[in-house]
Amino acid sequence: MTTLKRKAAIVGIAHLPFSKNIGTPERTNAMRVTMQALDDAGLRPEDVDGMVKSGLEATSEMEMCRGLGIENLRFFCEMGYGGGQGSGAIAVAAAAVASGQADVVVCWRARNRGSGGRPWAKTGWRVGGDQQFYSPFGCVRPVDQVAMIARRLMHESGITSRDFAEVAVACRAHARNNPHALMREPMTIEDHQASRPVSEPLRLLDCCLETDGALCAIVASADRARDTRHKPAWILSAAQATGNQTVVMANFHKTPFLETPTKWVARDVLRGAGLEPGDVDCAQLYDAFTPLVTMTIEEFGFCAPGEAKDFVRDGRLLAPHGGLPINTSGGGLSEAYVHGYNLILEAVRQVRGTSTNQVPGCETCLVTSGAGVPTSAFVVGA
Amino acid sequence: MTTLKRKAAIVGIAHLPFSKNIGTPERTNAMRVTMQALDDAGLRPEDVDGMVKSGLEATSEMEMCRGLGIENLRFFCEMGYGGGQGSGAIAVAAAAVASGQADVVVCWRARNRGSGGRPWAKTGWRVGGDQQFYSPFGCVRPVDQVAMIARRLMHESGITSRDFAEVAVACRAHARNNPHALMREPMTIEDHQASRPVSEPLRLLDCCLETDGALCAIVASADRARDTRHKPAWILSAAQATGNQTVVMANFHKTPFLETPTKWVARDVLRGAGLEPGDVDCAQLYDAFTPLVTMTIEEFGFCAPGEAKDFVRDGRLLAPHGGLPINTSGGGLSEAYVHGYNLILEAVRQVRGTSTNQVPGCETCLVTSGAGVPTSAFVVGA
Repeated sequence: MTTLKRKAAIVGIAHLPFSKNIGTPERTNAMRVTMQALDDAGLRPEDVDGMVKSGLEATSEMEMCRGLGIENLRFFCEMGYGGGQGSGAIAVAAAAVASGQADVVVCWRARNRGSGGRPWAKTGWRVGGDQQFYSPFGCVRPVDQVAMIARRLMHESGITSRDFAEVAVACRAHARNNPHALMREPMTIEDHQASRPVSEPLRLLDCCLETDGALCAIVASADRARDTRHKPAWILSAAQATGNQTVVMANFHKTPFLETPTKWVARDVLRGAGLEPGDVDCAQLYDAFTPLVTMTIEEFGFCAPGEAKDFVRDGRLLAPHGGLPINTSGGGLSEAYVHGYNLILEAVRQVRGTSTNQVPGCETCLVTSGAGVPTSAFVVGA
Repeated sequence: MTTLKRKAAIVGIAHLPFSKNIGTPERTNAMRVTMQALDDAGLRPEDVDGMVKSGLEATSEMEMCRGLGIENLRFFCEMGYGGGQGSGAIAVAAAAVASGQADVVVCWRARNRGSGGRPWAKTGWRVGGDQQFYSPFGCVRPVDQVAMIARRLMHESGITSRDFAEVAVACRAHARNNPHALMREPMTIEDHQASRPVSEPLRLLDCCLETDGALCAIVASADRARDTRHKPAWILSAAQATGNQTVVMANFHKTPFLETPTKWVARDVLRGAGLEPGDVDCAQLYDAFTPLVTMTIEEFGFCAPGEAKDFVRDGRLLAPHGGLPINTSGGGLSEAYVHGYNLILEAVRQVRGTSTNQVPGCETCLVTSGAGVPTSAFVVGA
């Protein structure tokens, strides 16, 4: 069976300082961060021959080429679905490299979401597609949509808001050691419990940040990866998933209610890498909201169905010595929310051994993208 | 060197009847035509695990899965740039298959462009991106933009409107034998010369149709292709290209003015397939406007630079016995204009030996997408 295993690696990473108001346009940020990621890899713009673009990105590949001085791209496509797309961009870049269609592929995301408007402003009744079936009933913001899922999770498995708090507290503990994280104040379970409800049962500290950010990861072929500046983060596997039960954000009509396409990326990404859940040293789990993390933990088989509420306790999510250290840069909950692209960068740091919450001897790091939307995941290894 | 050669094949094709007003929504058409293409391949919806979607497509992969009963997609992404994207969709699908990310990939395009509005309606001053530099000066419609290129071509190479007419007449001659083509009346050079100017130097008969159409091509792995209903059209190579001199539609500011990214797809697609221009038995060349065909003929090296004006004469573009039979279904100029996806289907027919303008013993057929925009091309073989 043909697989992606070790055919490509992430060889360069960069992000601009995260902030609520970066003060420069997304286009400028996209180009600056790509230059920095190329420099991190020891590559130059003329080495780039592929780009994978977020469908939401305001800057075209042509503009990127003009700004960066790239004469010829041989591969380019776009990824949809916001928080679900980041790992998919890596998957598609790796497929391009593995099949010989490109050698050096730029995957970037520049988003001024902290200083910009709310994507759901002026929606409500005025939506089409799947949203027409829930937006008019008040499920307008992502937090409202995930609140429905959280309530059902609580009903089915007995998980509580205090268990969700364990996820937020673990992310914050990691952010405290990461000088680039936006939220570095100490946080306790009690702080979480005292934070205001945003959309019940979700509280403020269940929710990710709203951030201006620009991030870039460079995917290169095995041949190119051997000459780059840092230890390559080899792509062991990468997968995407959607299907007839998937909607954005969640299918409130299906049975079972709580299944998401994450179950398929879990199957494919572990099988592709030849790993069991217990082989994963560290995980960067998409965390726009805390319940998405507990759901992902179950769907990947890190614990049995319904047992995430026990799994997340006792510091098991904490680096360096927890059983499954997650979101070791602070994640979307405490470092920055940038459609999960910061999780990609942190996985590379773990494999390089340069995280500020380094998991000792980390050989494999999992990255997942948004649960409940068309999604994706990948595993990098040393 | 890793290449796509014979790792994937187009195994199923279908289109709904082309018309000016198809009477059913794009979403319905997308699903119907995909079912027909799967049936053509002898495959079922449950065999599908990948989709490549036009970024302009109104129907999401999730909706396609729901309508068709596809439980789980493992690969999906989007292609930008209208007429430049069709061959790129095949390229990306082939890369997904070659790298093991999918086995059966649906590439579709459903567009009610004949009965729908003009994409450029209400533009003019109110545009951003690259268009802001030419749209306010009257280059609003694609035909206006290509007229600028055509005028320069005439100036530089001495090509004339009568030479452009040769392209239109060849397409019409082929359409006359194709019962699915929309324009089947006889056309002579004189008819072309008598047609009204639309944007000088381009006349009505230099321009493609405006069509409601829905088309689908199924790309499958080598293993799956061996069991399908028809002779597989093996993908010998596929390439995309854009760069820092590319804009949509054309970069009126660059030197040399007439270079397009087609020069790179020509290089990559011929090298990837291990072919010289003279080895190509038949070509489906993107023909939204006749001058794009003569430019592509030169950029692919079918003749020397500046000599397309001589190359297109003497029936050389005509099946079955011309030196380079092109657009053997009638192309965008006389069969249907559907962002060039009809060219993909006709290439498969040529390799199967089922074209209504069959090139005897056709072993290799080239397909190109739009010149002057981020573009793509591929070669299929028996």
